[in-house]
Amino acid sequence: MSETICAISTAAGMGAIAVVRVSGDEAISIASKIFKSCKGEKTLTDFSPRRALYGSILNADGSVLDEVVCTTFVAPNSFTGENSVEIACHGSQFIQQSILQRLLDCGCRLATPGEFTQRAFANGKMDLSQAEAVADLIASNSAASHRLAINQMRGGFSRELAKLRQSLLDFVSLIELELDFSEEEVEFADRQKLVTIVDEIRYKIKTLADSFKLGNAIKNGIPVAIVGETNVGKSTLLNWLLNEEKAIVSDVHGTTRDVIEDTMMLDGLLFRFIDTAGIRETHDEVENLGIERTFRKMKEASVVLLTVDSSYVIGEIKDFIGTYLPRIKDKQVAVVFNKTDIITSAKREELEKIEMPENVVRLFISAKQNQNKQDLLDTLLKFAKIDQQEDHNVVVTNMRHYEALTKALAAINRVDEGLQSNLSGDFLSRDIRDCMHFLGEITGEITNDNVLQNIFSKFCIGK
Amino acid sequence: MSETICAISTAAGMGAIAVVRVSGDEAISIASKIFKSCKGEKTLTDFSPRRALYGSILNADGSVLDEVVCTTFVAPNSFTGENSVEIACHGSQFIQQSILQRLLDCGCRLATPGEFTQRAFANGKMDLSQAEAVADLIASNSAASHRLAINQMRGGFSRELAKLRQSLLDFVSLIELELDFSEEEVEFADRQKLVTIVDEIRYKIKTLADSFKLGNAIKNGIPVAIVGETNVGKSTLLNWLLNEEKAIVSDVHGTTRDVIEDTMMLDGLLFRFIDTAGIRETHDEVENLGIERTFRKMKEASVVLLTVDSSYVIGEIKDFIGTYLPRIKDKQVAVVFNKTDIITSAKREELEKIEMPENVVRLFISAKQNQNKQDLLDTLLKFAKIDQQEDHNVVVTNMRHYEALTKALAAINRVDEGLQSNLSGDFLSRDIRDCMHFLGEITGEITNDNVLQNIFSKFCIGK
Repeated sequence: MSETICAISTAAGMGAIAVVRVSGDEAISIASKIFKSCKGEKTLTDFSPRRALYGSILNADGSVLDEVVCTTFVAPNSFTGENSVEIACHGSQFIQQSILQRLLDCGCRLATPGEFTQRAFANGKMDLSQAEAVADLIASNSAASHRLAINQMRGGFSRELAKLRQSLLDFVSLIELELDFSEEEVEFADRQKLVTIVDEIRYKIKTLADSFKLGNAIKNGIPVAIVGETNVGKSTLLNWLLNEEKAIVSDVHGTTRDVIEDTMMLDGLLFRFIDTAGIRETHDEVENLGIERTFRKMKEASVVLLTVDSSYVIGEIKDFIGTYLPRIKDKQVAVVFNKTDIITSAKREELEKIEMPENVVRLFISAKQNQNKQDLLDTLLKFAKIDQQEDHNVVVTNMRHYEALTKALAAINRVDEGLQSNLSGDFLSRDIRDCMHFLGEITGEITNDNVLQNIFSKFCIGK
Repeated sequence: MSETICAISTAAGMGAIAVVRVSGDEAISIASKIFKSCKGEKTLTDFSPRRALYGSILNADGSVLDEVVCTTFVAPNSFTGENSVEIACHGSQFIQQSILQRLLDCGCRLATPGEFTQRAFANGKMDLSQAEAVADLIASNSAASHRLAINQMRGGFSRELAKLRQSLLDFVSLIELELDFSEEEVEFADRQKLVTIVDEIRYKIKTLADSFKLGNAIKNGIPVAIVGETNVGKSTLLNWLLNEEKAIVSDVHGTTRDVIEDTMMLDGLLFRFIDTAGIRETHDEVENLGIERTFRKMKEASVVLLTVDSSYVIGEIKDFIGTYLPRIKDKQVAVVFNKTDIITSAKREELEKIEMPENVVRLFISAKQNQNKQDLLDTLLKFAKIDQQEDHNVVVTNMRHYEALTKALAAINRVDEGLQSNLSGDFLSRDIRDCMHFLGEITGEITNDNVLQNIFSKFCIGK
């Protein structure tokens, strides 16, 4: 880790300015070789750290490559915890590449993806879940996903885990103390009290693990399935929703639009529409097959918009609703009666009388005539907020964390069972240590090179 | 100009970090409203300028939007000459946009394209030709175009113009002094000496104007036309050239590849191949028409590669060369005998004996068999260097400057004629003032809003 690394840290391409970052023992001395202050012959090391110095980057022949602002950071007071230099240059790609080349010629090597953050982790500037949050933060494309990422980066999740590990440590210490005195058959740990503690820890781990569903929804968008028979206006509905918000979408997360699924930003929340197109809901012999396929696709949705053509005969509409509703009880469902502009008020009364569970929202709209859209948007927001109302101070957004929490939960369950069945202390101790191990994997207290490589290889270069 | 402006100054898109720039009277006080130092309650103004401060950007509700490094610059010691703040944030597009939004909410407005540089110009931090060089520098995609831009940005061109204007000012002062004493018919200015001075100034202006051809070639690539009859291997030759350098090309100026013409980087010089494809050089009745079209396309080339299939009958080859050579005497020409792998040594001897002007280079290659490529590359480089050998300390790269120089040249020519024909001092004075005016247009000493708007609107936002 003692090599000095460099990379372009700003977005690829041409900009007004770009920033080249250097980190490592030799960062300042290497940068000094190519930087000349505008104040005559002084080098970088003649100035105090953290001071923005105006000067030039020199070519090998001494000619000026660019006029830049250069800032040094002295270990451990830098992002990486190492000596660092940030060079803000003009944003020409030629200049960016040439400065990198100069640094490489003077003894740097090119940073690997995420290597700056990995060094920050290695130097104890942040734990592993915080390091992962840096990548999430950079990728965040909505107010909600951003909020989760910054909370995690600032250590919210880490503090939660530290508390859990501390409880487990207190617990296991008592058990292991007993083991030391095992011949004397003392019981330092009140078994009944231990059961209470384990219950509490288990509840907390489970809450964290459960929050992953929400976290994933926020990170990747709240999954919404628009389900309905052919020609009831599903596409019209989707376009109607998307058009409204297109301006906001393109401003804030233009780059994510090239994913296959359509997304929409509403009130800082990202909604992701699951494509159920191409699934036929006809009344011929393959009906059941079609419905099964729809259900499989809907499985990942947390919100379902059952879309109905209001002009269909009432029996058919009831059939459709009756087929779907019983099997999506765990979802938040709205039945969207579309094309209300072409029905009579008598028909509407009939539709209003169709029996449905209380928690199913009933909406009357006309996508084509642009009627009652706000009702639909309000409903989506309400659904999203129900999802978030659950008591989650800290939300897990990362699959790796979710897996570790699941393993930790299994371990703490074994502890619980062990306590119930009066398992001996050494077995209890092993399961508690297991649980601590899995929690430690999240923060990186326990880790291995493969895990690290896997995590940081997903970063961009320069971070 | 007193409004405080803000913009994202790094390249568009997601990066590890991004820089938001704020400039104007209120820059520091506005940034203070949204920045909280990690050192408790201190604000930006409590720290000395140019110091990289670690802290947080806060949302309107006081929650943390991002952890950033913030640097203040106090007027006049900044790029714009105004109070400025640079906020280096995480490179998520959501964060970049949100910080901008916060600044706008606190009283900034969004910068127009080039407005930071325009303010630097308005505040006397640079003249107009230097400001224009900033845009050229950012757009530079080769070592040569970069060198011209940085020289211009650092004031090389401006100093040259200042010298010329000073000479003209000395000159016109003498003339105008005479006018003050016109009734006494004195002659302070020795007319013969004036002719010498005008000659000198005219030579210098002309040299600058003439350098535009070179400057343009360097900025946009040295124009090379590959001319030849159908099937002599023009495309093969081009691909052969381009493939070799593809790695370098894509590294350094990947973004310019989407222009229609093919370009190649060789030894830091950009070559631009002019498409003469689709122009038929057959021996039927439309022959002359085809050749005329080729000549029109070749007009913009400074290098022509006349490509010949060595296996053709010698008479046909001679005809072809004889048709073209006399009409491209002002170009640098190489006759490229391709397909030498399929001819006899007797044929080769014949080809070597074809008479050509001394300055035409004769190359024997086989693009298909990859033979003698280095000869071809060396020739291209030699041609490029001949172009550059001309005595140009300062090279004009900008059409606006070229036009102003052309007008200045016309004015100084009128002065010359005036001197020859003993024109009276007041006419001379007017023409000299004209010449100074046009030179002043380049550096922006004389300017108007339209010109400024036209110049800066071509900048990117954030510069």
